[in-house]
Amino acid sequence: MITLDLTLPDTRYPIHIGHGLLDQVELILPHLRIPQVAIITNDVVAPLYLQRLTQQLEKHGVRTIPVVLPDGEEHKNWQTLNLIFDALLAANAERKTTLIALGGGVIGDMTGFAAACYQRGAPFIQIPTTLLAQVDSSVGGKTAINHPLGKNMIGAFYQPQLVVADMDLLATLPERELSAGIAEIIKYGLLGDIDFLGWLEANMDKLRARDPVALQYAVRRSCEMKAEIVGQDEKEQGVRALLNLGHTFGHAIEAGLGYGKWLHGEAVGAGMVLAAAASQAMGWLTADDVARVQALIAAAGLPIRSPDFGAAEWLRHMGHDKKVESGVIRFVLLQQLGQAVIQPGLPATLLESLFHSPHIDPALARQ
Amino acid sequence: MITLDLTLPDTRYPIHIGHGLLDQVELILPHLRIPQVAIITNDVVAPLYLQRLTQQLEKHGVRTIPVVLPDGEEHKNWQTLNLIFDALLAANAERKTTLIALGGGVIGDMTGFAAACYQRGAPFIQIPTTLLAQVDSSVGGKTAINHPLGKNMIGAFYQPQLVVADMDLLATLPERELSAGIAEIIKYGLLGDIDFLGWLEANMDKLRARDPVALQYAVRRSCEMKAEIVGQDEKEQGVRALLNLGHTFGHAIEAGLGYGKWLHGEAVGAGMVLAAAASQAMGWLTADDVARVQALIAAAGLPIRSPDFGAAEWLRHMGHDKKVESGVIRFVLLQQLGQAVIQPGLPATLLESLFHSPHIDPALARQ
Repeated sequence: MITLDLTLPDTRYPIHIGHGLLDQVELILPHLRIPQVAIITNDVVAPLYLQRLTQQLEKHGVRTIPVVLPDGEEHKNWQTLNLIFDALLAANAERKTTLIALGGGVIGDMTGFAAACYQRGAPFIQIPTTLLAQVDSSVGGKTAINHPLGKNMIGAFYQPQLVVADMDLLATLPERELSAGIAEIIKYGLLGDIDFLGWLEANMDKLRARDPVALQYAVRRSCEMKAEIVGQDEKEQGVRALLNLGHTFGHAIEAGLGYGKWLHGEAVGAGMVLAAAASQAMGWLTADDVARVQALIAAAGLPIRSPDFGAAEWLRHMGHDKKVESGVIRFVLLQQLGQAVIQPGLPATLLESLFHSPHIDPALARQ
Repeated sequence: MITLDLTLPDTRYPIHIGHGLLDQVELILPHLRIPQVAIITNDVVAPLYLQRLTQQLEKHGVRTIPVVLPDGEEHKNWQTLNLIFDALLAANAERKTTLIALGGGVIGDMTGFAAACYQRGAPFIQIPTTLLAQVDSSVGGKTAINHPLGKNMIGAFYQPQLVVADMDLLATLPERELSAGIAEIIKYGLLGDIDFLGWLEANMDKLRARDPVALQYAVRRSCEMKAEIVGQDEKEQGVRALLNLGHTFGHAIEAGLGYGKWLHGEAVGAGMVLAAAASQAMGWLTADDVARVQALIAAAGLPIRSPDFGAAEWLRHMGHDKKVESGVIRFVLLQQLGQAVIQPGLPATLLESLFHSPHIDPALARQ
């Protein structure tokens, strides 16, 4: 087991990465304020892991409240969040009851937001069960639900007590979810570590074959970079925005197609191709660089072409991005491979040509 | 104009109290991050003050987004909160757009919570239009919505940039709302300032007649006490819980009767009588003390008898209080007049007798 520390002005918490961690409840027990937890999970993860975690905790005298939600990004909304509050109140959960997120990014984001709001703030723990959640969403305290007009528009910065990333849980992960997680891993290479990008190119086959050593290294390196960036800028006043590489385009894809059509990681994959293409149009990346990005994303089993919404629709969806300031969309682009920058606004002609480029596929908009 | 300062570990903000402040937009302008605000108000306050505030702001080049919600505690829920998010997103409000709460406690609590969640945190300003909001709910950063199973169960600690309490706005306040505000003022006397309690007894007629000097003193003294207590304990780890005097009982009344039947201040009034009676049963207050509390609350035009839910129903509602720890309800009682204390748990026999005392009125439960 490797343990990373995320250090913030007001708090500090461990990120444990390793094998067989779900059964090591001694990692969790010291963080509980009272011996009561609510385990928030979904109907896909529950049959796999809920009973195991529950039994381990109850063996140590911890009362557990199970909350099983429907699976999928299309359920990351207020209606589903309210199911958590209903269950907590019906079971007399208290302000010191710990919420445990046992699931992927959707469960983690919703559980964290529920914890942020329940009685104005209950503690919570992340046990990510997908690669995407392990390398990205479970770390850093961004919690949220979607609004029909924009992804993650309603949420809070709210840090967990602890993150437990058990690599063994990835064994049951569907292929498509694995690729979605690799998208966020590629993001770290692209935005800040060219060596890691090279490593990913060399080891993509191993990652997709779930080689445990390769996977653990990729999770570790991603979490290290995330912890470092979030440690510098918890509330995204500056550098943290770079973690949104591919996300302004990606969120527009998710909202435009309807949440749940594409996985978040898939949208980020295609979004990073658009970000690379825009960076080429700015004169920063070469055609070879863009081809390299595209090849890596394709090798991960991710889509490299985005749906064709038309420029107006693209702009409308991107206009609901949290990085918009005074009406100007702040894009995360690549100055070079391994170095992301914020670009406030792009020329209309550049965007127009981007949305008529080979990176856009009209067929996809009619999925 | 008097200006108080609320100083917290991470922030500090002014509370302006005075006359004619609604038109002094120069108090607001320096706090805006971009020249765009959303003014959240309700259908009772909007016809009175919305246009005036809007015109003043637009005169200074500030774009305003009006959001008019239905009035009343029964609307302090997710459905209504979502109307705020809908309006913000439809108008392309950004993370730096300032939300202005123009209304009473319900509007202030909902606007604050919407600001806490919108794009994970937008700035907000409180312009309280009721006495209750001016003396209590607009100050200190407690924001929330209700859940059918418990009052204020979903919310956040989230501080405003500024509070502007314009005493002139109280001129349009209905009698019943004025009394509800006085309940929270009496609370400050009871919990921590016996001299202020005496002043209230001597000046209750003036307050109810809206004597401007008396009202301003009462608002100022209440805000001073609130700012001092919140400054010591923003997140209610300790002393801030004393501000809940009368509220554990009061919240049970509100939830038990259905939100909106009684005003929050009315429920707190009757709740303080129960808290005083329980304090007498503990041997802390004398019968004369309780009579004195009751007389003052009656003089304010507030109910002094609570509905008869039966002990089981009372306990069920009080069990959803945020001060419950490990299943034990933590009551705020009075060690003596002017000195509140936390009492973890009360003997069952004491509670039984309390719920069969003359402070309970069977007729009220059937309202």
